[in-house]
Amino acid sequence: MTNTQLTLVQIDNYGPWTVTPEPRREMDLQTLQSRLFADLAQFVGSRDGYVFFTRFDNMVAVTNGLDREDHELLQESIANRYPVTLSLGIGTDRSPAVALERATNGIQRAGSAQDGDRREVLSGETLAEDDRSGTDLQIAHFDVNDATGKYTDRLNEFDTFIHIEQGYASLMRYLREEHGALSFFVGGDNIIAVTPDLSEAQYRAAIDHVEADADVELKVGVGTASNAHEAGFAAKHALEDCRHLGTTVEFADASVETADD
Amino acid sequence: MTNTQLTLVQIDNYGPWTVTPEPRREMDLQTLQSRLFADLAQFVGSRDGYVFFTRFDNMVAVTNGLDREDHELLQESIANRYPVTLSLGIGTDRSPAVALERATNGIQRAGSAQDGDRREVLSGETLAEDDRSGTDLQIAHFDVNDATGKYTDRLNEFDTFIHIEQGYASLMRYLREEHGALSFFVGGDNIIAVTPDLSEAQYRAAIDHVEADADVELKVGVGTASNAHEAGFAAKHALEDCRHLGTTVEFADASVETADD
Amino acid sequence: MTNTQLTLVQIDNYGPWTVTPEPRREMDLQTLQSRLFADLAQFVGSRDGYVFFTRFDNMVAVTNGLDREDHELLQESIANRYPVTLSLGIGTDRSPAVALERATNGIQRAGSAQDGDRREVLSGETLAEDDRSGTDLQIAHFDVNDATGKYTDRLNEFDTFIHIEQGYASLMRYLREEHGALSFFVGGDNIIAVTPDLSEAQYRAAIDHVEADADVELKVGVGTASNAHEAGFAAKHALEDCRHLGTTVEFADASVETADD
Amino acid sequence: MTNTQLTLVQIDNYGPWTVTPEPRREMDLQTLQSRLFADLAQFVGSRDGYVFFTRFDNMVAVTNGLDREDHELLQESIANRYPVTLSLGIGTDRSPAVALERATNGIQRAGSAQDGDRREVLSGETLAEDDRSGTDLQIAHFDVNDATGKYTDRLNEFDTFIHIEQGYASLMRYLREEHGALSFFVGGDNIIAVTPDLSEAQYRAAIDHVEADADVELKVGVGTASNAHEAGFAAKHALEDCRHLGTTVEFADASVETADD
Repeated sequence: MTNTQLTLVQIDNYGPWTVTPEPRREMDLQTLQSRLFADLAQFVGSRDGYVFFTRFDNMVAVTNGLDREDHELLQESIANRYPVTLSLGIGTDRSPAVALERATNGIQRAGSAQDGDRREVLSGETLAEDDRSGTDLQIAHFDVNDATGKYTDRLNEFDTFIHIEQGYASLMRYLREEHGALSFFVGGDNIIAVTPDLSEAQYRAAIDHVEADADVELKVGVGTASNAHEAGFAAKHALEDCRHLGTTVEFADASVETADD
Repeated sequence: MTNTQLTLVQIDNYGPWTVTPEPRREMDLQTLQSRLFADLAQFVGSRDGYVFFTRFDNMVAVTNGLDREDHELLQESIANRYPVTLSLGIGTDRSPAVALERATNGIQRAGSAQDGDRREVLSGETLAEDDRSGTDLQIAHFDVNDATGKYTDRLNEFDTFIHIEQGYASLMRYLREEHGALSFFVGGDNIIAVTPDLSEAQYRAAIDHVEADADVELKVGVGTASNAHEAGFAAKHALEDCRHLGTTVEFADASVETADD
Repeated sequence: MTNTQLTLVQIDNYGPWTVTPEPRREMDLQTLQSRLFADLAQFVGSRDGYVFFTRFDNMVAVTNGLDREDHELLQESIANRYPVTLSLGIGTDRSPAVALERATNGIQRAGSAQDGDRREVLSGETLAEDDRSGTDLQIAHFDVNDATGKYTDRLNEFDTFIHIEQGYASLMRYLREEHGALSFFVGGDNIIAVTPDLSEAQYRAAIDHVEADADVELKVGVGTASNAHEAGFAAKHALEDCRHLGTTVEFADASVETADD
Repeated sequence: MTNTQLTLVQIDNYGPWTVTPEPRREMDLQTLQSRLFADLAQFVGSRDGYVFFTRFDNMVAVTNGLDREDHELLQESIANRYPVTLSLGIGTDRSPAVALERATNGIQRAGSAQDGDRREVLSGETLAEDDRSGTDLQIAHFDVNDATGKYTDRLNEFDTFIHIEQGYASLMRYLREEHGALSFFVGGDNIIAVTPDLSEAQYRAAIDHVEADADVELKVGVGTASNAHEAGFAAKHALEDCRHLGTTVEFADASVETADD
């Protein structure tokens, strides 16, 4: 059974900062946001977690395997190198949506995202090492069938983007409502979802829904492990299997996961 | 009348590279993508242009004021520092959508995005300095009314994100279909659109559409100038005027723009 | 007794790469080198190690606490994000100079730094967790007395730099020859040395030597711990003690070190 | 006749910041410094200038071709993205040392490097476009003969570094005292000098001095142009000529320089 540990990363009082004393150059803000995300991706990713940029001022990280000290160190290091600080809320549950609900509540209880006095909140508890297992995380890696041939090489980039975006919007809502899973667009034609234990039939139903709702054809590889990297890496291999076999849903077998260790 | 110069930035053969010889660590890919975008934001932004991350492997830049040499230098510098290379397609037109169509076609004619032999294409022509004017670009900066109070401080981050995303999806499609304008989510609750000359009534209609279609309330500041930074900076000031005046649509006046020079 | 674990980080075949097919833009090379160092500083530093830029194409890291898997992950992550790869040689000894000798030999035995076929060597063994102790590392943090008042605010920057550089050159040679300690300039007027167990008298003698040899007055804080960060952090506090007490050599007491945990 | 425009880049009140409220993690400071330098290298370098890291808290840039607006934009962009700000002092003269003297004086007159109230000084004037010429800059690119075979592949990295460092220390002092030239170590076995017009005999004398003084054998390529990139790029090609011809001093011919345009 999954046991997802999620961390909400929220830049403290970011909105007001971006317009104080007057609006800051947009490309400097874009640079700050994307580099901050990149630093989180390296810190969390090198500890076998995942982080998604979401709205950039609020980011969602899958932190199974990271403890409270890791979170404290991340806050200290960012505060030493950026003009902004981070609040971190940690939540765990078998349902990713419930885990994020808990992670978010911890920060919300400490004050508003635009409260100038609320800085570097660290709320919630991480999973005890003894409570972790090889089935804590299920990661599903989706992509669009032949996106290059059908869209990228044919349409102007914005119209391609509209198609990809509509497929993503349809999938994110379906998986959230049906299963409490959280789906994130990660660039290109790729969507990564953090899910509870779902069956092949449930993934097939999600893909059918997106095709009917948004006319976008997806396929998916699914992996399960004790941390996001191993689950996601297994999912990537399973997605490669879909490509080679021409199938729509593939689950990773154990050998692939252990191959990564 | 607007005269928008857009550059499509496409990473050469990126998809295959990400899984060769086997899938690469997702957080390394996320780091690479976001830092590449940040470098483009600094290069283009310090020349008063804008760049939007779009799908990260394909990015759209507003490059009025950048000439062919600037584009060549960007390609050379990225090739010197990254394991990937960039193809750049330039297009100009009074309609942003048509400009991007031309920019995209130039690259598509040179080969597929996944053609391993097609590298560092540079296609299209930039605006001659004599053809540039103070009305070449219209930038509209939208944000969501009280997003912090209504969403960020109340809902879990993913459900907040769904609301923001639905508002963006509705706006991007409406402005594309009605006006050939291109809208980009830039983080938080902010959307920046590159538009032709639109009237207050047309912006008001777009905002009404999004409220009816996605139940998300937007406001917008609009600026016009010879480059993206000045038009966008004026739009940010106009959006501040909306906040202070409680209005929904504000156009920047000249004094604000010149204040930035 | 100290037990220093050092890792030599060598960019594979870097020299030839910088001039192939023709010389690359110098500022792109400088950017690549300094960002690669920054990524190493974050990876190693967030695991409580230190890394010094030395010559940039060859860097020296203090890696007590990092195991072989950490080294492998570092190589993989850099190879995924940069156009160059890294070879890593690990060495341990009570003498930092001997540890580096071993670290360097491992890479040298695998081939030349300019051998195009030698890539991503990983040689040497890390300390077993059971063999680690709270006295494995001694870090000495030196700075120049009143560098701002005597140099920075008075001389042109290059002449200030010559004074600082001469003080560093004198100290690095003295500590290397007398004690097998390795000293690194880390910016401003700061020098950090990785040393064996040295006494207050030995540090005082080093400082007297530099004053006589290069007419530069130094002071030093010294810390001891099981990893570079804790030892160096204690050394920084001890250096602050020198400032407040007007003394030349201060050793950290345990309370300062534990304050950092 | 050369006409060098130099900019001193000084981080405002950096020393006190690094220990307030208590010492900051060294690897975070190293990351901040090296990334700040990398951003300067991209900003200045993409405008055909050079910047050298020198002491990191004080950096020297060759800014022929950059005007006052470029300097203002650099200050604004760094202030938007870093927890520190920059003061910039500009100076010009046929002698690089005198140009830096003027650049430094402008900042010193505004206050101390550790004056908490002195922020974002911008002093001095840039060269008028009409006063610029194709002989404004002479750049000399030195490297060590067979450094890999003699040092890197044979000695431990620190002892290699001592040899390279001694060669650099000897050259930097000789060129400063004899000719008012400024020499900077740029990594590996490379030294780049900003010089007045020097003859082949004068370069030969410098190289002979370093061999006699520090037992390090250098060769040099020399280029002249209106900006640092073109002069330095020509110097790199001339250094390649030394390698192929086995000579010690080579001057670039015009064809090489124009080849870069």
